[in-house]
Amino acid sequence: MFSRIAIVGFGLVGGSIALAVREEFPSARIIAIDRQPVVDIALRRGAADGGGETLAQTAEADLIVLAAPVRQNNAMLAELGRHVLHAAIVTDVGSTKTATVDAARHLPAHVRFVGGHPLAGAATGGIDAARGDLFRTRLWILTPEEHTNSQDVARISGFVESLGAVPRTMDPQAHDRLMAYLSHLPQIAVSALMQVVGEQTGGEGLALAGSGLRDTTRLAASPAGTWRDVAATNADAIGAAIDELTSALQRLKADLTAGEELQRVFDEAGRWKQLLESAQPASRID
Amino acid sequence: MFSRIAIVGFGLVGGSIALAVREEFPSARIIAIDRQPVVDIALRRGAADGGGETLAQTAEADLIVLAAPVRQNNAMLAELGRHVLHAAIVTDVGSTKTATVDAARHLPAHVRFVGGHPLAGAATGGIDAARGDLFRTRLWILTPEEHTNSQDVARISGFVESLGAVPRTMDPQAHDRLMAYLSHLPQIAVSALMQVVGEQTGGEGLALAGSGLRDTTRLAASPAGTWRDVAATNADAIGAAIDELTSALQRLKADLTAGEELQRVFDEAGRWKQLLESAQPASRID
Repeated sequence: MFSRIAIVGFGLVGGSIALAVREEFPSARIIAIDRQPVVDIALRRGAADGGGETLAQTAEADLIVLAAPVRQNNAMLAELGRHVLHAAIVTDVGSTKTATVDAARHLPAHVRFVGGHPLAGAATGGIDAARGDLFRTRLWILTPEEHTNSQDVARISGFVESLGAVPRTMDPQAHDRLMAYLSHLPQIAVSALMQVVGEQTGGEGLALAGSGLRDTTRLAASPAGTWRDVAATNADAIGAAIDELTSALQRLKADLTAGEELQRVFDEAGRWKQLLESAQPASRID
Repeated sequence: MFSRIAIVGFGLVGGSIALAVREEFPSARIIAIDRQPVVDIALRRGAADGGGETLAQTAEADLIVLAAPVRQNNAMLAELGRHVLHAAIVTDVGSTKTATVDAARHLPAHVRFVGGHPLAGAATGGIDAARGDLFRTRLWILTPEEHTNSQDVARISGFVESLGAVPRTMDPQAHDRLMAYLSHLPQIAVSALMQVVGEQTGGEGLALAGSGLRDTTRLAASPAGTWRDVAATNADAIGAAIDELTSALQRLKADLTAGEELQRVFDEAGRWKQLLESAQPASRID
């Protein structure tokens, strides 16, 4: 399918792609591009055949997977054309897509782009957590736009399918708006909630919290780094989602005593929650 | 300790108090006050010795435990004085306290009140879920105010301790403000989040959600009923907490691109989350 695959950013997702490729395409050559200690680990784990710290390593690749944080991916798209010598497809695994698709418009003609976002993760990141089955039965969204070559989409679609994932195409803007609600707003709301509750109650107050607050705030342990990239590259959609939530909260506040708005919101939330729990796993959607 | 205990509202908490009393004080007479089918279940389970549908059943009680929804408890405090014949202590188990403490001010002198709130619950309510060990090692907050008889506080404190709970006294207003942040705001925020996300993405969008949204919204299955009582009787504190959260969200929104506010909030939230997880269970606090 591809014979020389350069993976830029060899963390959980990049490393897992490498391990899955190893199993499925043992003859493919994998080039790891990351800081040298990470490249060394990749080589020791047998997850790569070579590598280095710079995009010069992409010269001979026919597939380049950008798996660094989103804004690093976007910055690399501006220079990648100078390094890639032959016809190649570039894809990425970032969790926002519009800004990346925009950045890819400036690639030279022989380097063609198909945006991607595997809906897979793990509690801990980094190459040490990488595993070959990370994408099995998980949805992998591809975000072609009007200029994207449909044969390239088919090739990337086949590639992610061979890693065990279930490909699905979506417009980049629709992807970003959907993720603003399904992923980015929940994360930001939970972090804000945890910060406000902690600040207002202090450590002594927090000690009285029950399982409700604990469960609700699981995501509050997420590190800021990745989320700064997500927020910066999806600010419009996230901003609109924050406005929807604050409006809903203020409507509830205005009617706490009568409680009719609370009744309506809780009833609807209960129905959506039931639907969320009964939904087929993402992988079963086609 | 008490020889005739009337429990008004024989659901999860009321029923569990009865079962715990049975174990600890086998000779105490328990009177169940609820709708007749519930009283019948209580009698069949051996959780009560008698009972009925009206407060007239409290006539001979020396302890009356109000375990109905908060506003029903508050309404009953207005009539209870007409039914109780001898000196008695009344306590309640509601999750807001200021309004109940206020309502109790009108009791006649022979019926004395000590507000309470056991920090215990279960996924399902109702007498069928009741169990005698529900309060074991759980915090049980008592909220005396300036006119509360300190001997009564000591008796109720000893009573809840004998049910396995860990009593702790707190000012009613301080209790309500603390619970607004630890319990009421998280519940309302989660219900609002689930409603907004469902409304904006629809069922097809929700099907793509990952474990983050699922975990975050566990509380979204909570029924409106109880929460309408909580919201109506703690509207000021909850309203202030909602304002704190919406302000935090709007500050985040204003800086999504630069991300410095996001960095600050996520860093602080991470520290509070760590504290929340490492905190001694509530029961160990004294």
